Amino acid sequence: MVTALDPAALLEGVREGRPRAVGRAISLVEASSPLVPALVAGLAPDTGRALVVGLTGSPGVGKSSAVGALVARLRERDQRVGVLAVDPTSPFSGGAVLGDRVRMQEHALDPGVHIRSMATRGELGGLAAAVPAALRVLDAAGCATTLVETVGVGQSEVAVAATADVTLVLLAPGAGDGVQLAKAGVLEVADVLVVSKADRDGASALAQELRAMVNHGRTEPGAWAPPVVLLSSTDRTGLDEVLGAVEDFVAHQRASGGWERRRARRARGEVEQLVLARVRADAPGGGGELDRVAAEVAAGRLDPYEAARQLLDTPSGR
Amino acid sequence: MVTALDPAALLEGVREGRPRAVGRAISLVEASSPLVPALVAGLAPDTGRALVVGLTGSPGVGKSSAVGALVARLRERDQRVGVLAVDPTSPFSGGAVLGDRVRMQEHALDPGVHIRSMATRGELGGLAAAVPAALRVLDAAGCATTLVETVGVGQSEVAVAATADVTLVLLAPGAGDGVQLAKAGVLEVADVLVVSKADRDGASALAQELRAMVNHGRTEPGAWAPPVVLLSSTDRTGLDEVLGAVEDFVAHQRASGGWERRRARRARGEVEQLVLARVRADAPGGGGELDRVAAEVAAGRLDPYEAARQLLDTPSGR
Repeated sequence: MVTALDPAALLEGVREGRPRAVGRAISLVEASSPLVPALVAGLAPDTGRALVVGLTGSPGVGKSSAVGALVARLRERDQRVGVLAVDPTSPFSGGAVLGDRVRMQEHALDPGVHIRSMATRGELGGLAAAVPAALRVLDAAGCATTLVETVGVGQSEVAVAATADVTLVLLAPGAGDGVQLAKAGVLEVADVLVVSKADRDGASALAQELRAMVNHGRTEPGAWAPPVVLLSSTDRTGLDEVLGAVEDFVAHQRASGGWERRRARRARGEVEQLVLARVRADAPGGGGELDRVAAEVAAGRLDPYEAARQLLDTPSGR
Repeated sequence: MVTALDPAALLEGVREGRPRAVGRAISLVEASSPLVPALVAGLAPDTGRALVVGLTGSPGVGKSSAVGALVARLRERDQRVGVLAVDPTSPFSGGAVLGDRVRMQEHALDPGVHIRSMATRGELGGLAAAVPAALRVLDAAGCATTLVETVGVGQSEVAVAATADVTLVLLAPGAGDGVQLAKAGVLEVADVLVVSKADRDGASALAQELRAMVNHGRTEPGAWAPPVVLLSSTDRTGLDEVLGAVEDFVAHQRASGGWERRRARRARGEVEQLVLARVRADAPGGGGELDRVAAEVAAGRLDPYEAARQLLDTPSGR
């Protein structure tokens, strides 16, 4: 029995990969509990091993089905797997419903799969701080791979790319958004392009179109050219091809130094979010001065640079 | 003649609304010049008056044309107008090309219109810090209204909504993305819904569909129900209706206290970005410790909470 009042037992439970302990730890992270810094520090020696795979794409492109099928394949390889379904698109409504979690039910009773959905709670940036900590929990729990699924329109896929070691961008035939997405810069964050719903008409035409785009865009010698892989979650075909493309990318990254650069960028983003959390009123150990100085700035009584300087120079409680 | 070496003359030029001074000041902001804090502080007494109107919508929906037409209408009302075209969708490519700036050429020689495009320069968050400062420059330069145009897919329109006093979401008939956008949460940030390309088939059907969605979604008494307005930039019809809806919204916000809440939120975001800028290596007055501690975190030698604490406790150069 794990309780929030026994941090040592919680740490132990997470390290052993016990589902209740993992769930409890991520709940603490989501709630910005004052226990989180100690939890993250305690788990630190057991982290850094998990591969974080981001999946993004427009609504309806089949992300949840793809995640479900990939989890099944990784389980057949005896990997412990984490799934984080992130929905950053409704910050003003205070959290969206992930209806398609239903599709993940085949893994709901598997203790080797940790599934969690996270949504913003009104506050922009709250999720940005919570996701890296949740990834640390899943990492320490022994998940060799964690799949991070987000609704990928605009900057959310950038956030995934900043968090993930590998980013898969999913596109479906007939969705008619291939060109639009390419224009909007989504292809730029893709390490692997996945044509989902490959059992449908138009899948190979879309794949061809994407390959032409990739070849047109990348010319640097030695640069990674995102492969285009066909995946059918219904037929369960293309799963090994997707996972193989991920492995190829990781090997390329390790050889080119890109792996370290990306991990450093991720750490940078994580620390930045914690710096912000500390100057916000509601953060553990935070000075709580942000609201006060922001009101002064809004009223024109303080300029924003002076406000930032004051926040950084306030020693309150730190 | 204004030079970067004469801050007093630059301040004076911005206050007088001289185009070269305004352009130079925004360039300093974009480049994170060490002169920016003094510039912003110096302009502070002359800011807080401009109305910031955000325009967002999918690529191809006609945002630039709408901005061009609205600018023309505001000029007929003898307002000085600012335009900021923000493209946050290509952070990894280091800045996208705003090809449709061509459509703004009718205003290029008008000294009463300040037009500027801003794109990210590789660094996520750089734009988030620069946009509020650029808005302050335009405000001090006497722009009664500044239109901020962004590519609205995903979280970018959230960033607009966080910066703007009023957010217009544009949708075009036949783009087929009405329902998708509604799902993705775009409607939640809309204060006014604009059906652009109203001269085309399907415009009134789309308007009806949107009105039904708005009426379905909002039930709180006294809450603002976003009006749906038809606009044709080609025929120049609907411009007064759009501007009227903006005025109605502002009146509603002022009466309900929403105006102050939004301005406080904007100030909060601005100060947060400056806090981050100061812990980054390249920021004016920054401690430059972020890269060092992030590398320690990435290597597993430091936990991220301790890293954040160290950054906030470092007095270097502050």
